[in-house]
Amino acid sequence: MTRQNLTVAVVGATGVVGRTMIQVLLEREFPVGDLRLLASERSAGKTVSIDGATREVELATGEAFDGVDIALFSAGGDASRELAPLAVARGATVIDNSSAWRMDPTVPLVVSQVNPDDMEGHPGIVANPNCSTMQLVPVLMALRDAIGLERVVVDTYQAVSGTGGDAIRELEGQVRAHVAGEPTHRAVYPHQIAFNALPQVDVFLDNGYTKEEWKLVTESRKILHLPDLRVSCTAVRIPVFVAHSEAVHVETRAAISPDRARELFSAVPGVVVQDDPSTSTYPLATQAAGSDEIFVGRVRQDPSIDGDRGLAFWVVSDNLRKGAATNAVQIAEALVERGWVRSAAARGVAPYAAEGSAIGAGA
Amino acid sequence: MTRQNLTVAVVGATGVVGRTMIQVLLEREFPVGDLRLLASERSAGKTVSIDGATREVELATGEAFDGVDIALFSAGGDASRELAPLAVARGATVIDNSSAWRMDPTVPLVVSQVNPDDMEGHPGIVANPNCSTMQLVPVLMALRDAIGLERVVVDTYQAVSGTGGDAIRELEGQVRAHVAGEPTHRAVYPHQIAFNALPQVDVFLDNGYTKEEWKLVTESRKILHLPDLRVSCTAVRIPVFVAHSEAVHVETRAAISPDRARELFSAVPGVVVQDDPSTSTYPLATQAAGSDEIFVGRVRQDPSIDGDRGLAFWVVSDNLRKGAATNAVQIAEALVERGWVRSAAARGVAPYAAEGSAIGAGA
Repeated sequence: MTRQNLTVAVVGATGVVGRTMIQVLLEREFPVGDLRLLASERSAGKTVSIDGATREVELATGEAFDGVDIALFSAGGDASRELAPLAVARGATVIDNSSAWRMDPTVPLVVSQVNPDDMEGHPGIVANPNCSTMQLVPVLMALRDAIGLERVVVDTYQAVSGTGGDAIRELEGQVRAHVAGEPTHRAVYPHQIAFNALPQVDVFLDNGYTKEEWKLVTESRKILHLPDLRVSCTAVRIPVFVAHSEAVHVETRAAISPDRARELFSAVPGVVVQDDPSTSTYPLATQAAGSDEIFVGRVRQDPSIDGDRGLAFWVVSDNLRKGAATNAVQIAEALVERGWVRSAAARGVAPYAAEGSAIGAGA
Repeated sequence: MTRQNLTVAVVGATGVVGRTMIQVLLEREFPVGDLRLLASERSAGKTVSIDGATREVELATGEAFDGVDIALFSAGGDASRELAPLAVARGATVIDNSSAWRMDPTVPLVVSQVNPDDMEGHPGIVANPNCSTMQLVPVLMALRDAIGLERVVVDTYQAVSGTGGDAIRELEGQVRAHVAGEPTHRAVYPHQIAFNALPQVDVFLDNGYTKEEWKLVTESRKILHLPDLRVSCTAVRIPVFVAHSEAVHVETRAAISPDRARELFSAVPGVVVQDDPSTSTYPLATQAAGSDEIFVGRVRQDPSIDGDRGLAFWVVSDNLRKGAATNAVQIAEALVERGWVRSAAARGVAPYAAEGSAIGAGA
């Protein structure tokens, strides 16, 4: 196992996404020599369980990144802004799940199936997109490449795990209170989430949009290399634990049939079409949870657009996996495959891109 | 109280909507002289509680409508198709909550604030729109009248009570099973509804749309008198007990600002604007449940439409009340006010439209 010698840090290792990152690294047999589990002061000293073994999480300081090849960050924007440059200065390549660096013009924002080549010559930080953007963009890419995109309208049905462990416990607590006939309590969300739909994900911007909605607009444009793509979005939190769903209405440049769209979607790596109304087969949050794929269904012509240039469909994916951890690991795989891990390359450990390596072609 | 002499039948009196109809008739002090509670064979003989008194529900036969002035139907399409003509033949005016008669060109389809005048010369049946259409159309009317509508995209977040009492119990049962750590059971929906989002409301049509989605398209056009209005819809069931939410994206004929749209919406009777991002104030299912109003918020410019001709917003209303029972009673009020209750008019009991009557101007 001579190539399994990368030193990988997970920053935010006690969080919902951080723990999923560790799991996905193991599942995909990423060539980890040394795994460092790091967290902010609030969580350092806690333990996490890996394959049955208990590991203590250490404080994320600049020094903690000495010798690290790849650092997967999921500890929030403040931690990323402060620590990512320190990690990069020590030779690590940072794959950052926060929104801190995504719209920095020097930082590639990457969905593994869509734009891995944007990482060539990266500045040490690669940004992992927002979860609701992540699952949408590979599907839009198929339409962009085949016929061109005019306008996209997306309304989301987002799981509480996107907010974190506290939000999962808040929904669980409210549901238990309901069953017990007791009053519900809330602390994470501004309103009760159980048996409700909150049209607010993240904070509000001055233009009346939430940050989540605006992320989907701006990140989609950047990843798809369509700076003028017209996107409208309402982001909504619903009482689901894991997996985001999205109702999508697309106006295309040329005519396209639902059958052709299904073919195009099926051809995208990591995208699975589930679409048979006769058996009520369509993507579902409860079924997508735990999977790395993006599921698409309910594909149909949108009659409100002339000339068969309209499509409507439904996209579901596990927001913790493809929407966060899995894509981060897939970015790491693509960096390794292309020999673009900075410090590793500096130390002459490349080539990593040899055919038939354990790394596979997941990117 | 000389005008409180109408004989009113509620057909489907044991159902969720039927019971709400009885409640709304009482709350709004509709001039009921005699109240007949009817149901199909499956439910006849059951009892319902009205203001603390227990009443037995009788079998809905043709004869049961003898002497009835107004019959509020909410017993499903089959019962409406069979019984409504029998009731009309006996002189009753039927207000039907099923989809059976809605698209019949001779039958008015009415939202009380929007098109009550469509009932002039009605054939004995007036149709009550689908719940998800109901809450949307008064808001769209404001834009139609002020600047004109080009295209509407709507994605729904619908409560289980729209399906009926069995669905409420199914969600409740699945949530209790989750809390108890037991497997969930389902019978009403094709998939688990707890902690899930089902992109299927009602059955599928050949064009890939669900009947619910297609109802919203065709019923909106009929009510708004816009036979060519371009509408795209995805209808989704979520684990909410009462009140439907809708994410709406509208393309208008002329430029409009969010402020102007809020003014227009506020001016529609029965529509309440709740819109202050700084305090996380927006319409919520849990707050709308039990109210007769339609709540609108999250009003903002849609930047994906050029020339300030795009708006996005969020609409919430109690699907059992304004979405069904309240509008049915408001239709009855409008019929009485205008002297358009057929049998009553035939019996010379009019005029009902006298100023200052107990009936009010709810229509």
